[in-house]
Amino acid sequence: MDEKLLAAIPHIGEISHRDVYAGAPAKHTATFQERSSRQNKVLPSLEDAIRATGLKDGMTISFHHHFRGGDHIVNQVVGKLAEMGFKNLTLAASSLAAVHAPLIEYIRQGVITHIETSGLRGELAEQVSRGLMDCPVVFRSHGGRAAAIRSGELHIDVAFLGAPSCDPYGNANGYSRDDDEAIACGSMGYARTDAKYADKVVILTNNLVRYPNAPWAIPEYDVDYIVVTDDIGDPKGIMSGATRYTKNPKELLIAQTAAQVIDAAGYLYDGFSMQMGSGGASLAAARFLRQMMLDKNIRCRFALGGITGQIAAMHEEGLIDRVLDVQSFDLDAALSLKKNRFHHQIGATYYASFLSAAAVDQLDFVILSALEIDTDFNVNVLTGSDGVIRGAIGGHPDTAAGASLSVVVAPLTRGRIPTIIDHVNTIVTPGAVVDVVVTDQGVAVNPRRPEVAEKLRKAGLRVYTIEQLRDKALALVGRPDPIRYLDRIVGVVMYRDNTVIDVIRQIEE
Amino acid sequence: MDEKLLAAIPHIGEISHRDVYAGAPAKHTATFQERSSRQNKVLPSLEDAIRATGLKDGMTISFHHHFRGGDHIVNQVVGKLAEMGFKNLTLAASSLAAVHAPLIEYIRQGVITHIETSGLRGELAEQVSRGLMDCPVVFRSHGGRAAAIRSGELHIDVAFLGAPSCDPYGNANGYSRDDDEAIACGSMGYARTDAKYADKVVILTNNLVRYPNAPWAIPEYDVDYIVVTDDIGDPKGIMSGATRYTKNPKELLIAQTAAQVIDAAGYLYDGFSMQMGSGGASLAAARFLRQMMLDKNIRCRFALGGITGQIAAMHEEGLIDRVLDVQSFDLDAALSLKKNRFHHQIGATYYASFLSAAAVDQLDFVILSALEIDTDFNVNVLTGSDGVIRGAIGGHPDTAAGASLSVVVAPLTRGRIPTIIDHVNTIVTPGAVVDVVVTDQGVAVNPRRPEVAEKLRKAGLRVYTIEQLRDKALALVGRPDPIRYLDRIVGVVMYRDNTVIDVIRQIEE
Repeated sequence: MDEKLLAAIPHIGEISHRDVYAGAPAKHTATFQERSSRQNKVLPSLEDAIRATGLKDGMTISFHHHFRGGDHIVNQVVGKLAEMGFKNLTLAASSLAAVHAPLIEYIRQGVITHIETSGLRGELAEQVSRGLMDCPVVFRSHGGRAAAIRSGELHIDVAFLGAPSCDPYGNANGYSRDDDEAIACGSMGYARTDAKYADKVVILTNNLVRYPNAPWAIPEYDVDYIVVTDDIGDPKGIMSGATRYTKNPKELLIAQTAAQVIDAAGYLYDGFSMQMGSGGASLAAARFLRQMMLDKNIRCRFALGGITGQIAAMHEEGLIDRVLDVQSFDLDAALSLKKNRFHHQIGATYYASFLSAAAVDQLDFVILSALEIDTDFNVNVLTGSDGVIRGAIGGHPDTAAGASLSVVVAPLTRGRIPTIIDHVNTIVTPGAVVDVVVTDQGVAVNPRRPEVAEKLRKAGLRVYTIEQLRDKALALVGRPDPIRYLDRIVGVVMYRDNTVIDVIRQIEE
Repeated sequence: MDEKLLAAIPHIGEISHRDVYAGAPAKHTATFQERSSRQNKVLPSLEDAIRATGLKDGMTISFHHHFRGGDHIVNQVVGKLAEMGFKNLTLAASSLAAVHAPLIEYIRQGVITHIETSGLRGELAEQVSRGLMDCPVVFRSHGGRAAAIRSGELHIDVAFLGAPSCDPYGNANGYSRDDDEAIACGSMGYARTDAKYADKVVILTNNLVRYPNAPWAIPEYDVDYIVVTDDIGDPKGIMSGATRYTKNPKELLIAQTAAQVIDAAGYLYDGFSMQMGSGGASLAAARFLRQMMLDKNIRCRFALGGITGQIAAMHEEGLIDRVLDVQSFDLDAALSLKKNRFHHQIGATYYASFLSAAAVDQLDFVILSALEIDTDFNVNVLTGSDGVIRGAIGGHPDTAAGASLSVVVAPLTRGRIPTIIDHVNTIVTPGAVVDVVVTDQGVAVNPRRPEVAEKLRKAGLRVYTIEQLRDKALALVGRPDPIRYLDRIVGVVMYRDNTVIDVIRQIEE
């Protein structure tokens, strides 16, 4: 082959390529095992990996939150970036927790000047609420984040992704098939989106395993560099054992009522689908639903979302056909993902993106928690009654919008604080996608769903208006003083379609 | 929230989105099961799906070849496109077989004016070799095609992908977990690339199953429309039972020698990796390797590529830890993929793309077949000794380049035709990536690999020069008359990096 012959090919202009073969790169001759240890993507240090990515001031870095309160990756990486002199970075995490308080110092130093996340907690959240950052924090739902990354609205330059196992070419996973004693975080669903779309991907692992690390959450072709580090996190903080059942009588009452509501509304039938949260009432509801399923002799076609040991146990019991797991909430769930063939790991796009058909759209019902609910059925899961950020959007609006019946559970009052009020501090999930509110003092159905209210009444459940529940709450604890805010905006809340649904203002002290 | 408040958000220009929440779409209220049957991606007919995709004259359509000789999808879809009056389409298939002879008529009518494929066989190949098409057919390897699709060099407008199971939202798979009697093609690895990168994706299935069709080869978010059709193909042509062992003494001798070569060269050790073809000698080699593994008490870390029942049996026997399956060659392999948790389905990018680390790069050895081999170790698997196209590139150059030891097996002569000659008709895999040639009359080692020749000699194997093998062949059958070609170019052969490595000319009759 030569250029002259190439030029003689008819329609070569339409056949896309115009280059002549110029020889193949020199071949490997070492054995696969020898090459694995020498010719691979592992770099000697985090600093080497950061340099290799070409990261520059002003770029966006990302992290996942599958290590939860035990995460040591974010602080480690941002500490190194500070040491190397980086400035003006955007930190886009799938979520942040109390363990990330050291970020405050790096924000003060100008290393991090913008944050995107699903939630904030602890001292970092306190400081952000008090005006730590010049640029408001952007809060997105899990589905909204997946869509923003896919559409390019949230462009990630470099993703730093912790992994409990990874082989020398980057096949990374949240558990290890070869080492049962290793740290496990179960599903790495949220990290998959970062790995797929980030320009450069660095895996940080404490457990370099043999190729192929199969099954994998992240395939090698999405990974550029690997750093082996002694410490990816605290196993106790990453995963506790099975989430425990509540013994709180208020929560048990709410749970039982929620289960009755779902059944009465007609969504508990052979082949139904569901998502449950990890809160006390949600977990307890699973127990009541389980008993109803046994009594009716019906099965659940699939359970979705953040998965708990309770859901895994019901799967193993044969009550749930398929488990679609975007995040394993406890060690029992992680072990089930490892062990059970129909417990599937899914990514954030598959779970909840509004850009395509997503699993949330196939839900019969979801049980969701709330910090506040207002008389328009808007729900706040992000700011406390003092106006301080102390939560996370998670998949709340995604599942509420997707499920045929979204059930929001909450105690009517918490201490001296009413849960149902005139206007929530922060709208996270709009009333347009909330169907039923279940409290320990009664149930309210969104007027959009008169047929549901009718079915509940026929089943003998007493249905209140949301205003009646608000009045009950106020009668019990009185109307709290309004929160005093400054004008300054410290947070922007996106709905799942990435439109701005609310802002969070700096609190006045 | 209103526009005024939006404008008041500091740095709103840097926070990417600028739209205010304008309400959520109306919610589903029907149960998940009711919705599955009414609100989904299933369209009434193929014609409806074609219209919905927005396909236009001059665009590129794609197909996979996992239904092999039993495929009814390509003819069905192109027939419908012809009926609807489409013209000037590019047909980009992962491969084409003898069953696709009806394309000849559609080419004559101008419905299809260009073809991209890994191979051609039967009457279509005969006609192309005789000048059927004005624009030359572009032949790519499986890895080259994956890379070309990913880079945009091969842009697919609409992919039409047959699937033995699919749920109403597009989760598609090569087998069904819910129906053991259904058609199975096993892995759909090559189709994954099309689904991921095509602008529009239509799944054609004869088996609409319940959501979620988990596990899936293709996720719902990559699928736009679904057409249910009685006939996706002939089960007998899609998958026969286990590929049978050869009893041909020549093939057995070649197989035994190939196994000895691999062992002597040092690539048969505990933890090695391999890929085997589905040809007679290749399959027989697996049998000899198996015995050697038992004798040495070693295991294979992973087997890759097109997978046969023999490989699946060795996996079940505990001799192979992991199977990475891009294409299931027979029904036993497909059943193993369905049954065995460490028999993994992989896509074409993961398998062989040169754009990133791929599984082929981790091979110790591959055993490959050949129609012709020349004294530069170039290999032809595409055109016969009469110059007519009658084969497919497949993963030949990908695995030869990736494996530490590429072993090409062939009889020294076929009838009156020598296999080893001065110049192959068509260079598919360049000698730069071919290491050893094994024939029934002796072994030759590429001079690039003197250490391998030395090891073989030490192990008592007689090593010839490739010229000696050529001379042996010519002594046996004489030098064949040169093929008479016209100047006209009917095919373009791409190396795996998508540079042009050779052209195929029209034969003179």
